[in-house]
Amino acid sequence: MDLYAYRSGRLFCEDVDLTALAAEVGTPAYVYSAGTLRHHYRSFAEAFAPLDATVCFAIKSLSNLSVLKLFVEWGAGFDVVSGGEVFREQRAGADMSRVVFAGVGKTDREINEAIAAGVGVFNVESEAEFENLARLARAAAAPVTAALRVNPDVDPRTHTYTTTGKKETKFGVDIERAERFFAAYGRDAYARLTGLHLHIGSPVNTIEPYVEAITKALALIERLRAAGSTIDTLDIGGGFGADYETGQAPQAARYAEKIVPLLARTGLKIIVEPGRQISCNAGVLLTEVQYLKAGGDKHFAIVDGSMTDLIRPALYDGWHFIYPVVLPDGAEPPVRSRQYAPAGAMKVDVVGGVCESSDFLGKERRLPALHRGDLLAVFSAGAYGFTMASQYNSRPRTPEVLVEGDRYRVVRRRETYEDLIDAEA
Amino acid sequence: MDLYAYRSGRLFCEDVDLTALAAEVGTPAYVYSAGTLRHHYRSFAEAFAPLDATVCFAIKSLSNLSVLKLFVEWGAGFDVVSGGEVFREQRAGADMSRVVFAGVGKTDREINEAIAAGVGVFNVESEAEFENLARLARAAAAPVTAALRVNPDVDPRTHTYTTTGKKETKFGVDIERAERFFAAYGRDAYARLTGLHLHIGSPVNTIEPYVEAITKALALIERLRAAGSTIDTLDIGGGFGADYETGQAPQAARYAEKIVPLLARTGLKIIVEPGRQISCNAGVLLTEVQYLKAGGDKHFAIVDGSMTDLIRPALYDGWHFIYPVVLPDGAEPPVRSRQYAPAGAMKVDVVGGVCESSDFLGKERRLPALHRGDLLAVFSAGAYGFTMASQYNSRPRTPEVLVEGDRYRVVRRRETYEDLIDAEA
Repeated sequence: MDLYAYRSGRLFCEDVDLTALAAEVGTPAYVYSAGTLRHHYRSFAEAFAPLDATVCFAIKSLSNLSVLKLFVEWGAGFDVVSGGEVFREQRAGADMSRVVFAGVGKTDREINEAIAAGVGVFNVESEAEFENLARLARAAAAPVTAALRVNPDVDPRTHTYTTTGKKETKFGVDIERAERFFAAYGRDAYARLTGLHLHIGSPVNTIEPYVEAITKALALIERLRAAGSTIDTLDIGGGFGADYETGQAPQAARYAEKIVPLLARTGLKIIVEPGRQISCNAGVLLTEVQYLKAGGDKHFAIVDGSMTDLIRPALYDGWHFIYPVVLPDGAEPPVRSRQYAPAGAMKVDVVGGVCESSDFLGKERRLPALHRGDLLAVFSAGAYGFTMASQYNSRPRTPEVLVEGDRYRVVRRRETYEDLIDAEA
Repeated sequence: MDLYAYRSGRLFCEDVDLTALAAEVGTPAYVYSAGTLRHHYRSFAEAFAPLDATVCFAIKSLSNLSVLKLFVEWGAGFDVVSGGEVFREQRAGADMSRVVFAGVGKTDREINEAIAAGVGVFNVESEAEFENLARLARAAAAPVTAALRVNPDVDPRTHTYTTTGKKETKFGVDIERAERFFAAYGRDAYARLTGLHLHIGSPVNTIEPYVEAITKALALIERLRAAGSTIDTLDIGGGFGADYETGQAPQAARYAEKIVPLLARTGLKIIVEPGRQISCNAGVLLTEVQYLKAGGDKHFAIVDGSMTDLIRPALYDGWHFIYPVVLPDGAEPPVRSRQYAPAGAMKVDVVGGVCESSDFLGKERRLPALHRGDLLAVFSAGAYGFTMASQYNSRPRTPEVLVEGDRYRVVRRRETYEDLIDAEA
């Protein structure tokens, strides 16, 4: 679900005409719909309400400060993965006790900052990290709460690069090792190990892998409790899919329908860490056609957005629906799917201006005839879009624009050339 | 060739002890050797000296301002691909007439800026771009020089993502179309089309594709001249390989040995655009081991550098030699090759702290036993390293350090958390 729709042939975000927005802000630009973010956040909060659950938005998917402030207003918790993300939450005014800090490589500086900030839970990924966390908490005389990330060895059937919960990844510890881990570290006075953390990959468009992972975790919790450990929290992680194609991913309620009954009578505090499902469809990347050309038997639309703005197509073979912001006269609004082919469509590669072949936004897309100056929307770009942006080819990064109803504001300004060299001697 | 070597078991860059450098600057950090850059630049300049040739360093590979200023001192020309890179050259004090501006998606703003800056040659990639360039040059009453990028349809046998000179790419125009192109546009008074531009891909570790492409281009130039065109410049492009493994790539002289005779009696001005071969081996990424862990049957060294610093392994399956900065007692300095396996080696994945499986710097590397706090050098990281860096996971970007002899200076400071949000509302 999202609040992007065509009205009389023009694409709107909520009540904002994106053609008008682009005319003022320029292109390329990221646009986010606050209402879409709220809808998805609330869907998770409501779906998991039967449990003692905290929905922690995974901000690595979308971390603009103004967006984070909305989530603070809505009462969300947060999943962070770095000192920089801890800092963002502090600036956003988050209740730091509702922040969980994950990540396999937390540095001493990051851990110390997170301890000082009062982060709620440290999700710990290895023995060495636990020992370090306990040492630093002791040195700071500030006890912390920790959860052990276990790999349930479940196949989420997603891209190799985003599979994380199997054995032989850098993440967490194998589930068989968890009991030894608790035996060794479960009584530490400064890092109180009272939770388990799961994360199986992303995006996961089926529910069974969650059921399988949670079932394994609950069995482990029983064994740990039987051995005398106090386990009060289960973080079931994130990875919930999103609609790159309309209707592609189960929505929060459907995941919860299978997950909530498993957890209902466990007495556990539950943490859920959706990122992509909340932010993905809330964002589009607006970009303008600069040139049309033919090469061999192919047609190219060269746009002012590029892999520096959205690297998912190059890095993960990510697929984003792309369509003109203004429809040809009388055209039907498109269905966002790989199969969609409007009447009179041309097959084009939508590519950026960066000097390498990996710089494409979409290949072999069936689009209405395009012209120089046409505005295109790259849909489902709210997650892992701007957060992965670079300045490669010395391209200043795009602005981010937040839409709320019929108003919008630039929540990150367009970078300038001066920004490129600001830190250089 | 490069100026990184172990002295009594410690890695030096020129005469700088990298352990001492890291202690002062911190990790992760990019280090560049000015002497290595100079060696490779001069190798190209000397190898092509028998021709009327300009060596234009491709700054998309490495664009730090202080580095660019060195090339300006050495008398280099420059290959740029964006308005931001034009701006960098202006700031570096380059002779803008020795700057060539390539790129498939030049915006009006970028073209106008480049015209105003007095850029030497516009490498034009399509009919639509030529028409636009001519229109803007006319409007500015400022005639410009243009070269047509032609695709010689040569297979450079490199990674799909970095193959650029075949048919069916977004780059240039097919060689068969070039004559029509000159017939249509060859007499424009404001965009004087007097050159051809080739670029076949990168990295290209063999010489034959250049010979083949240049041979095709020379035949085309003969046909164009016979039809009345004035062609005075041939830009043979870049893409020359670099030593990710020692001795892997032919060096400038070996490319020139085959290329110079082809061009010697043509009377053409020649432009050569090396990037990677000049900058790659001049740089290392220094990173510190944070944690060691096992997962399944694998071993991981989790370091403070990540895909946000160096995305080549994730994006192109790029391979970089990785080795400790301080050798175990009595160990031999390593040979930089995939086969190298020191006595008592452990097989480890060297991975970063970013929350995805794509975040690795090297997989299954045979390394001496590692310990927390060990410093590793990721070699051959001078090209497409920092220029592709991102702040994903809200990770501040690394500093860049320039070594000259026994001195070094931070030429780009380490980013702060404030830098992450500076442009946000």
